[in-house]
Amino acid sequence: MRRRLTREMHRMKVIGPEAASACAALSDICMRGGKRLRAALVCVGARCFRQRPNLELLIRIGAAVELLHAYFLVHDDWIDSDNMRRGGPSAHATLRALYGKSAGDAAAILAGDWGAAVANDWMAQLPVKGAALTRLLSAFSEMQRAAICGQLRDTLAQGTDIERTYELKTASYTVQGPLALGAIASGANAKQLDALRLYSIPVGIAFQLRDDLIGLFGAEKVTGKPFGSDLRAGKRTAAAIYAFNTARGSDRRLLASVFGNPRASQKQLLEVVQVMEYLGARSEVERRIATLLAKANRGLRIAPVNDAGRKLLASAANALALRSM
Amino acid sequence: MRRRLTREMHRMKVIGPEAASACAALSDICMRGGKRLRAALVCVGARCFRQRPNLELLIRIGAAVELLHAYFLVHDDWIDSDNMRRGGPSAHATLRALYGKSAGDAAAILAGDWGAAVANDWMAQLPVKGAALTRLLSAFSEMQRAAICGQLRDTLAQGTDIERTYELKTASYTVQGPLALGAIASGANAKQLDALRLYSIPVGIAFQLRDDLIGLFGAEKVTGKPFGSDLRAGKRTAAAIYAFNTARGSDRRLLASVFGNPRASQKQLLEVVQVMEYLGARSEVERRIATLLAKANRGLRIAPVNDAGRKLLASAANALALRSM
Repeated sequence: MRRRLTREMHRMKVIGPEAASACAALSDICMRGGKRLRAALVCVGARCFRQRPNLELLIRIGAAVELLHAYFLVHDDWIDSDNMRRGGPSAHATLRALYGKSAGDAAAILAGDWGAAVANDWMAQLPVKGAALTRLLSAFSEMQRAAICGQLRDTLAQGTDIERTYELKTASYTVQGPLALGAIASGANAKQLDALRLYSIPVGIAFQLRDDLIGLFGAEKVTGKPFGSDLRAGKRTAAAIYAFNTARGSDRRLLASVFGNPRASQKQLLEVVQVMEYLGARSEVERRIATLLAKANRGLRIAPVNDAGRKLLASAANALALRSM
Repeated sequence: MRRRLTREMHRMKVIGPEAASACAALSDICMRGGKRLRAALVCVGARCFRQRPNLELLIRIGAAVELLHAYFLVHDDWIDSDNMRRGGPSAHATLRALYGKSAGDAAAILAGDWGAAVANDWMAQLPVKGAALTRLLSAFSEMQRAAICGQLRDTLAQGTDIERTYELKTASYTVQGPLALGAIASGANAKQLDALRLYSIPVGIAFQLRDDLIGLFGAEKVTGKPFGSDLRAGKRTAAAIYAFNTARGSDRRLLASVFGNPRASQKQLLEVVQVMEYLGARSEVERRIATLLAKANRGLRIAPVNDAGRKLLASAANALALRSM
């Protein structure tokens, strides 16, 4: 991926240093790492249906998926005004420092657009013929649209059926999409892909719920963001919604004064975290994660995958839903 | 296109009314019309290499190109803070009215992202096999990237070699890309496509220069935007750059006070237009358009296209470079 991104960046430099700097901001986010979860799941999906999958092909698909992910991160960070990402400045933060707020924001959006175009192109150029290519492109597009629709729901209809939002925003695009791409690359048919959903959707929702908990209760070193930034930003996570629905009196007033308040103090943030803890918000979400994990495992038992795939999916489910980072 | 967009919109309604409203704002821009220039050029490109091109295929490609165009309009209008488009509110203006500034802006960006994903999907689903599909997708991606890079240059490096910016922002994506897509659909080879560039790049740049002149001197009814909005927005068009480089004394002070001033009065705007006129900014740009048109016609004479195609391209060049609306 580094080699291919470098080649794309080189083409950008011909266009001009400014355009290149914008795309470098996206490319940096991409190369800064992250868990490479989606690329790994592409490989798992492929292993489920073939003993020796085509690794070269999977690496290419994985690179396109990770680049698509970087594009979403760049747009989403701008939407959420998140200035940190993967332990460094987010793309719009980098570009604002170079070009000022309004041109920097525009450049970040365009850098994301560029990433999307390049990712789609990488997919279109895969060395796969005929109907298989069409199916891969279709699955890639499905992933993209689900993530965009999930983000739209998250932005415009916060709090209404949050698990449906998570299904679109996270499950479809983080778990289901990558697994499906790998499976298609190994020749899985439509019926097999459908069966895989019974596993991947609950796992994906559980992964997002875990992500929420880590964002709320996790250490700075783990999240790559300042402590309490999700609270300061007023992110309507499942735990936050639960806490708001349960809190009364002074607890409720505390929540209302801190939640979505960018100037909330460290002390206030710690208090809110404690309140959420004793109101049971954390254990409620933990319970829900366990239920989803059980559901995924039931789905996995009847999934039409080979034994090696089943083992990989079982460990993936635990790793995604129960991870501590 | 209406039928296909309606189908996509229907899928969005299942996602939720808010997500649907965002995509409706993009879809509205798309269906509000415009010149459908790019879709027409897809057909011209196809006619150049085949007497009876596959119309059904061309209509599908044309629809994808027009949808891609709507996506760029939505993002660009947000970048340029243009509140009007095609005689109605731009997408972010519509969505701000529904959801407030920050959520409205986010929704407009996401609606654009959605349009891009759908347009790419329409291309991927074309009923074309093997290498031809890969070539079509490649050309589509090339168009997208050129437009994004042009917009990046326009945003971050205003005024440096403006015709290079126009080549990327307009020529590649408005003339060259659509012609190439049509030509590929009719089986043109890489050498034939390259030859076509000698025509399409100068025509495309001339088209953008004409667009600038119409934006500056054209009537409201023609531009679909309030008179002088390009001046108020401080758009660094070729004519504006020329005027700035030539103006002295009070003319220069007037330009500086009006250009990029959103509160400039109608009277001031009219004065600036007169100053630009007598400084020769308009005639300078007209001269440049004529030079580019002559260059395109030289390219056309040696282009490897059939006679019907040559005639169509000759009228297209005149229509694009000399149009009055």
